[in-house]
Amino acid sequence: MNLILDYIKEYKNKTKTSAKLFSKSAKLHVNGVSHNIRYYDPYPFVVKKSSGKNLVDVDNNKFTDYWMGHWALILGHGPKQVRDSLRKQIEKSWMYGTVNEQTIKLSELISKAVPVAEKIRYVTSGTEATMYAVRLARSVTGKKIIAKIDGGWHGYTSDLLKSVNWPFSESESSGVVNEEQIVSIPYNDLEGSLKILKKYANNLAGVIVEPVLGGGGCIPASPDYLKGIQEFVRKNKSIFILDEIVTGFRFRFGCLYPTMKLDPDIVTLGKIVGGGMAIGVMCGKKEIMEYADTTGKKKSERSYVGGGTFSANPASMVAGYATLNHLKSKKSIYSKINELGDFARKEIGKAFDGKVAITGKGSLFMTHFLKDGITEITNSVQAAKCDTQMLAKYHFKMIAHDGIFFLPGKLGAISDSHTKADIKNIVKATENF
Amino acid sequence: MNLILDYIKEYKNKTKTSAKLFSKSAKLHVNGVSHNIRYYDPYPFVVKKSSGKNLVDVDNNKFTDYWMGHWALILGHGPKQVRDSLRKQIEKSWMYGTVNEQTIKLSELISKAVPVAEKIRYVTSGTEATMYAVRLARSVTGKKIIAKIDGGWHGYTSDLLKSVNWPFSESESSGVVNEEQIVSIPYNDLEGSLKILKKYANNLAGVIVEPVLGGGGCIPASPDYLKGIQEFVRKNKSIFILDEIVTGFRFRFGCLYPTMKLDPDIVTLGKIVGGGMAIGVMCGKKEIMEYADTTGKKKSERSYVGGGTFSANPASMVAGYATLNHLKSKKSIYSKINELGDFARKEIGKAFDGKVAITGKGSLFMTHFLKDGITEITNSVQAAKCDTQMLAKYHFKMIAHDGIFFLPGKLGAISDSHTKADIKNIVKATENF
Repeated sequence: MNLILDYIKEYKNKTKTSAKLFSKSAKLHVNGVSHNIRYYDPYPFVVKKSSGKNLVDVDNNKFTDYWMGHWALILGHGPKQVRDSLRKQIEKSWMYGTVNEQTIKLSELISKAVPVAEKIRYVTSGTEATMYAVRLARSVTGKKIIAKIDGGWHGYTSDLLKSVNWPFSESESSGVVNEEQIVSIPYNDLEGSLKILKKYANNLAGVIVEPVLGGGGCIPASPDYLKGIQEFVRKNKSIFILDEIVTGFRFRFGCLYPTMKLDPDIVTLGKIVGGGMAIGVMCGKKEIMEYADTTGKKKSERSYVGGGTFSANPASMVAGYATLNHLKSKKSIYSKINELGDFARKEIGKAFDGKVAITGKGSLFMTHFLKDGITEITNSVQAAKCDTQMLAKYHFKMIAHDGIFFLPGKLGAISDSHTKADIKNIVKATENF
Repeated sequence: MNLILDYIKEYKNKTKTSAKLFSKSAKLHVNGVSHNIRYYDPYPFVVKKSSGKNLVDVDNNKFTDYWMGHWALILGHGPKQVRDSLRKQIEKSWMYGTVNEQTIKLSELISKAVPVAEKIRYVTSGTEATMYAVRLARSVTGKKIIAKIDGGWHGYTSDLLKSVNWPFSESESSGVVNEEQIVSIPYNDLEGSLKILKKYANNLAGVIVEPVLGGGGCIPASPDYLKGIQEFVRKNKSIFILDEIVTGFRFRFGCLYPTMKLDPDIVTLGKIVGGGMAIGVMCGKKEIMEYADTTGKKKSERSYVGGGTFSANPASMVAGYATLNHLKSKKSIYSKINELGDFARKEIGKAFDGKVAITGKGSLFMTHFLKDGITEITNSVQAAKCDTQMLAKYHFKMIAHDGIFFLPGKLGAISDSHTKADIKNIVKATENF
């Protein structure tokens, strides 16, 4: 494909300093990066600063960003409200290692917005939050098996590292030891899922699901599917875990689950609620969370749920508070970004003239290049069978030629810093792809 | 003990706002905290800011702090050099989600100071770093068993949650599933350790050790012990992992292992290298780390080592860089704080008139109230058999009466913000305990 070679040439021409710096980075780091997905060919540009909708690289190229910090930055890069709070907090220091008033303020906000958050535990990352959710489900039920979705992504914890990437039947990694305790079920296929869950019912500790698959293809769950899973889990006395790390505070001020009339036992949060600073949250019903209360229990009885050196550090707490507080006081942000998402899905779909499916919800959207008879995307298998290389090329072309950044192959997230004109630019870039 | 009741009264009198806020916190959070160890009776004070050697609570009490952010804050709270860097970084934003120049700068510094860091991977917490180290050891060797130390603490990862707290033979938690893949060996007892390791030799992926037990009692390893373990591991073609999350850059500019003439395969870092911002580091020899290179490998062949949304975020990177850079340019910090540690061990020991053992190394120190015929502390079993309740009382008395903060029961860490007068105040507080 000559065109792609042209784009690579164009990219190399404008990212010469990045090329030099990345070759340093490649000597220092595995794959040259600190997260496998941040690498793309021929090399990722190297960022020096970011602001609003833009990433700025070391060659002073500006990119309108739809990766938005792993989809965490709902207000854009470095929004004023959060910046001001962080500035103030840094004068009071950024780490205490103790109980602090900043944590209480954030928790008051979260607990009002998320009914199930009767008790909250802050941790350092989403990976930690889902690890603890699994441990807690096993503690509460005394059972071992955790069911997850084909293509569901809950971070790198050993407890959920199975059936993440295509082909789902193949192990995700060498060096993992408890895959047989993880069972995978087909998304949005209630009958197929229940068939599998029933087989493991006696030993099923819980089911963990994202209400919109993130890494798995930006695919909303049908409410009936999740209700059916929840009903089975409840009857079976297992634990229903919703992973809202991507979806929490993304579509509305609160979680997605109340709009689907769901009643999870445990919810995990992250990303948006930390305002761009490191955070993970496990929260849930009081009677479930209390299993993690360590007082007066024998070691082997307690559910040993930690936190970590950096848990509830005041910098993360104030960045999260400033973000949520701004979202709360200006609810029009949600209608704005949700509408921009609708607009993006419609117009990009039009530009591709029906050869793609655009999945997503609200401000999250993703383009799938249909092939092999796939006509709709309701699960990760269909998403994986699309032309994912074409998606990466499409994204790379926009990086090289149009000053638009999607992490190649990943879904896009619209923030409050984006405008309709920005979405129109994606449409224009799509038309000349 | 009437005296303790008096101290509780004194504490309650001066922490009335904390009492109110903590009761709020207890409603919102399990145990009222975001890390189990941050709770102590009757309630922990609530911090509003910190500076230099001091924590300041919501009642405006000042405490000379030796907890120092889980021992991460070697320059004290909010040191100017790091604060200035963070201020500047916040103007450029605090999260990019991409490769950035701030990361490369920090890695250049670390790789020069830590010879084994031929390749570096940043993650979000120490818990994640040790999880990946275990996964990598299993990937490289194709074996499953990981050996750790009785009382060794490597964070809450499911892969190392065994034999952490006394009694070591009892499970650490309900809800954990792969304890049978973890084997525990006695610290500083080479013969006893080798006996166990030999039993598992065929399936031994690696051994993970802290060169100074942190949570397990602030106990330095004898170099001969670690050399013996290393020799066995090497012969057995297993992987030797040193967990230097506490000890890295704590005693000298670099890791502790070169002073012990050790040659680990993988080293984990955290705490100090993040300057108080969230960080975890896994680094190691190139030929080992390259197993985590995901390019051109089948899923089941690669060692799937991640990073996370917040890995290598520029705020953590510049805080780490500013901290290390200051330590590098002012090496007298190490001789100062190491000498203060020696002074503390000697003088506190004198004040207790031989009824205690003070363990530690350099700027880390911990008091053990000897009982039941224990006369020295060279492993966690001895440490656990000491009067640990008396230690908690001793620490609580200092919080209530002397304005000195140790997290009750935990080791103390001296920072560059402390002076000889501060240590003398501990000694004085000890004399009237």
